[in-house]
Amino acid sequence: MLRSHTCGELRLSDINKQVTLCGWVQKSRDLGGMTFIDLRDRYGITQLAFNEEIDKDMSAHARSVSREFVIQVSGSVIERESKNKNNTTGEIEILVKEFKILNESHTPPFTIEDNTDGGDELRMKYRYLDLRRNEVRKNLELRHRMAIETRNYLDKLNFLEVETPVLIKSTPEGARDFVVPSRMNEGQFYALPQSPQTFKQLLMVGGFDRYYQIVKCFRDEDLRADRQPEFTQIDCEMSFVEQKDILDTFEGLIRNLFKTVKNIDMPHVPHMTYADAMQYYGNDKPDTRFDMKFVDFKQVTSAKNFKIFDEAELVVAICAKGAAEYTRKQLDELTEWVKRPQLGATGLIYARHNADGTIKSSVDKFYNEEDLKAWSVTCGSQPGDLILVLAGPEDKTRKAMSELRLEMGSRLGLRDKTKFSALWVIDFPLLEWNDGDPNLLASLAGRWHAKHHPFTSPKPEDFNLLKTDPGAVRANAYDLVINGVEIGGGSIRIHNKELQAQMFDLLGFTKEEAQKQFGFLMNAFEFGAPPHGGLAFGFDRLCSLFGGSDSIRDFIAFPKNNSGRDVMIDSPSEISDEQLKELNITSVINHTVAK
Amino acid sequence: MLRSHTCGELRLSDINKQVTLCGWVQKSRDLGGMTFIDLRDRYGITQLAFNEEIDKDMSAHARSVSREFVIQVSGSVIERESKNKNNTTGEIEILVKEFKILNESHTPPFTIEDNTDGGDELRMKYRYLDLRRNEVRKNLELRHRMAIETRNYLDKLNFLEVETPVLIKSTPEGARDFVVPSRMNEGQFYALPQSPQTFKQLLMVGGFDRYYQIVKCFRDEDLRADRQPEFTQIDCEMSFVEQKDILDTFEGLIRNLFKTVKNIDMPHVPHMTYADAMQYYGNDKPDTRFDMKFVDFKQVTSAKNFKIFDEAELVVAICAKGAAEYTRKQLDELTEWVKRPQLGATGLIYARHNADGTIKSSVDKFYNEEDLKAWSVTCGSQPGDLILVLAGPEDKTRKAMSELRLEMGSRLGLRDKTKFSALWVIDFPLLEWNDGDPNLLASLAGRWHAKHHPFTSPKPEDFNLLKTDPGAVRANAYDLVINGVEIGGGSIRIHNKELQAQMFDLLGFTKEEAQKQFGFLMNAFEFGAPPHGGLAFGFDRLCSLFGGSDSIRDFIAFPKNNSGRDVMIDSPSEISDEQLKELNITSVINHTVAK
Repeated sequence: MLRSHTCGELRLSDINKQVTLCGWVQKSRDLGGMTFIDLRDRYGITQLAFNEEIDKDMSAHARSVSREFVIQVSGSVIERESKNKNNTTGEIEILVKEFKILNESHTPPFTIEDNTDGGDELRMKYRYLDLRRNEVRKNLELRHRMAIETRNYLDKLNFLEVETPVLIKSTPEGARDFVVPSRMNEGQFYALPQSPQTFKQLLMVGGFDRYYQIVKCFRDEDLRADRQPEFTQIDCEMSFVEQKDILDTFEGLIRNLFKTVKNIDMPHVPHMTYADAMQYYGNDKPDTRFDMKFVDFKQVTSAKNFKIFDEAELVVAICAKGAAEYTRKQLDELTEWVKRPQLGATGLIYARHNADGTIKSSVDKFYNEEDLKAWSVTCGSQPGDLILVLAGPEDKTRKAMSELRLEMGSRLGLRDKTKFSALWVIDFPLLEWNDGDPNLLASLAGRWHAKHHPFTSPKPEDFNLLKTDPGAVRANAYDLVINGVEIGGGSIRIHNKELQAQMFDLLGFTKEEAQKQFGFLMNAFEFGAPPHGGLAFGFDRLCSLFGGSDSIRDFIAFPKNNSGRDVMIDSPSEISDEQLKELNITSVINHTVAK
Repeated sequence: MLRSHTCGELRLSDINKQVTLCGWVQKSRDLGGMTFIDLRDRYGITQLAFNEEIDKDMSAHARSVSREFVIQVSGSVIERESKNKNNTTGEIEILVKEFKILNESHTPPFTIEDNTDGGDELRMKYRYLDLRRNEVRKNLELRHRMAIETRNYLDKLNFLEVETPVLIKSTPEGARDFVVPSRMNEGQFYALPQSPQTFKQLLMVGGFDRYYQIVKCFRDEDLRADRQPEFTQIDCEMSFVEQKDILDTFEGLIRNLFKTVKNIDMPHVPHMTYADAMQYYGNDKPDTRFDMKFVDFKQVTSAKNFKIFDEAELVVAICAKGAAEYTRKQLDELTEWVKRPQLGATGLIYARHNADGTIKSSVDKFYNEEDLKAWSVTCGSQPGDLILVLAGPEDKTRKAMSELRLEMGSRLGLRDKTKFSALWVIDFPLLEWNDGDPNLLASLAGRWHAKHHPFTSPKPEDFNLLKTDPGAVRANAYDLVINGVEIGGGSIRIHNKELQAQMFDLLGFTKEEAQKQFGFLMNAFEFGAPPHGGLAFGFDRLCSLFGGSDSIRDFIAFPKNNSGRDVMIDSPSEISDEQLKELNITSVINHTVAK
């Protein structure tokens, strides 16, 4: 080794040891006869001391190094005069006797500090420098720890990690596939998996009983801020289970992760039906760190000649605890906020439940004191609370109120990133009607779509609705939601060929299409497929949640930008004509003209 | 859970317990009033007993099930009359009280037994049934165990598992890339990584210090029996190390795997130079389970008027212990074997060192008793041994002798799959001349090629030869060889921009090409790159070695065949015109005409 110790491990107990350290120059200070260098590596920072009286040339040499030079030093561990209690190595320093520059460095384009002056694009381009920053490194250390703990937990429960293939078959179901032209099979293409769904089901048919994998998946979607074309899932499947068994098993995993990684005792994870989540939070992934549930105001507001409420499909309120003192200006601002096109509410009605017990609303013309008392009783307001009411078409108003609730939660400091509230949302609808979506292939637009995916089992008690009222059929499907973020989801799968065929039929597949795309799975169901189910967690998102960040990019070593580009390696890029020819494809883009 | 226990866990101590089991019908026997079913799951086989006197209908129902039906039974654990000591559950059986068919099964196309009657193609097509066989499942359980042990070992040594991207940039270095057209970046392509080489080096530049990953890699090569287009590596890199540190660290990993997975105490792994490996074994991956080293016979055979030896560049012998009794027929057969076109030797000379001490050769006309004694002394033969000699052009003869040595090792039973002999081959040449290879792009043919890859550091003492005699430059590169199989390899990397540029120049890159393809790495070297090195193990091969198999396919859940096809899912396949259009490519294969 080029070093005897790391920069994070020497203590007072090591005094007088002869040591060799390697690392990067964090900063250097020249104090007359003494030069000090903070030497950094992944494990910490150790102070180096160069005494001009001992070796003048070496001190001069040391003074010549700049930030981010890589150096190697040997010397003895001595006690520091002015100790730095904030640093675990802050009680000692190295009195340097030998010194060597291992590699030089240009001045980095941004500072390698916890708070850097580098913008996002610059940090992405020089990701290898960004990775030197404590914050980024700690995110990836967290990710490593979570992967190890996940694997060890599942291993103890007899789950087998099995690698499923990356070069698979393109299917028109779901989002767009990335495809890979096959040179050896002319005119044919592999696809990269959007998930290992069918393979993990085949592993269950193969008797593997319990499977997991921490696995890369791929989706060629138009990217939003928090999406990456390649992402990682904790993918799991179990045989001979019912929904409850899966929820219990993976609640165990999540609670174990909170305990081992963050030392948090996560309480039992409650279950909430999709219907309740929509009714009380207007959202299938409610943030339950705070209450502020939706209250139906239709009844207490009707027949008072306030046309807006009378004519609205939905009148819904929330009670913001302790917000009665919001000024008129704040309320006007909130009104503008809900009227933005993204939310599209026509206005915001409010009622202050004042500290003195009186209630004053923005619609006093229509509602007298007694009416407003009924409002208060209905939504459980106390003196000091603010009642906020939205009205309008059901879906749109619910959605706007969901956003308003989250906004009020944020403004009132109820969404603390160090607090965690988890729940299972269960009983999702099996299907949803979709008029067409730019992320879905046209051939599947304007039809029933699987809310989870086509392999999800309907609830047996709803089987009879499949033919009469597909939209009312509930699925044995579930999502894990933490702090308003969907962390994972899954379902009990169909394991019966006829039911699977019926499902494909509902989703608009012809028999031939279903056979061509998923014949291998339906055939497998004819050879003794066990009842099975599973789920997948978004690992990038789970890591960012644990790390207290909203961005998954911070938890990916080499992320891509919103155009799917890696700006560091400058990819994707053009390939040679020779490559295209070997692959039997041509690019319709004229390279000499295109950007 | 649909079961209270698995089919592998009940014992005599569980007698009288009421249990519920699920699994597959392995076989059933009808013995008059009793029907017995062997119920199988991943964990074992448990015998079920149906007593006609207790429940006639249920017994009849049980008799109706066929092989591979999935059933659920409840009943009590009872002691078996005729115990089966070969089965861990063989002392008990379940007296069934409730019985349910969970799913039916067609008759499988091959038997789900340790020795199946299914051929390779059939087993691949119905891989989900093949996976039910003990042997295949055990292989994948072994793989799981090896991955867990690898991760835990490296975790303890402070290695961080970091995921590197799968959608990267195509580079003309090495084998062919699989490419992925980018929809969002018109006319441009991602490539799938042949290895995470540059990314792991950038992680070192980023201060990550110790990295590993068990990671899928991709190579669009013409497939040989033991190659897959996607394969898995244990990929590792360390900073501030010298070659010895890497060898020691990963010798530790391998020995730990042998200990934890196979309970084998692997001795210290010896080092052998590439030059010695070529001289003594004619091969850079010698099988050292047996000795039988090459002996240079030039001197002891020359000047005896035997033209074949006199004119040969190389005369080389091996001494096959205990093979003196080989019959003339066996020796003729061996001669034919070395003369096959694959080996291309012109003939085989032998000398029997008989039990009585006499030596008889196939060239007695040229070599008298005294000459043959010199042969014997030179190669250390004892009475009972057989001396085999090949002569001819150096490279070809060495290669043929290497094959002959392995063949003799096999014939003499010296290549026991349960014995393991490892060694590090070190000091590989940095470069090799390549006149062109169908697996390399034409633009790189007929030039110096990197023996490992272009990022490998030359030995500092050979720097001066880079300009004068590139072929003589040795690299800080090493391979781990076990039982004659290359299990892994790596090198100390270049961390200096100038040296890296010089290397690209030697490999025939123009400055512009080097900058375009690898500019990001060379730029990174200008910002404080630490000295670093690493290696990668072929995980599929390591698993097959541990499992005592020659085929990596047996250790991959869903392998592809030699045409790169997954015959189970029928992939690759054609994709829709709509998909092609969105990706801005056209396929030059006319689908209506093509196969």
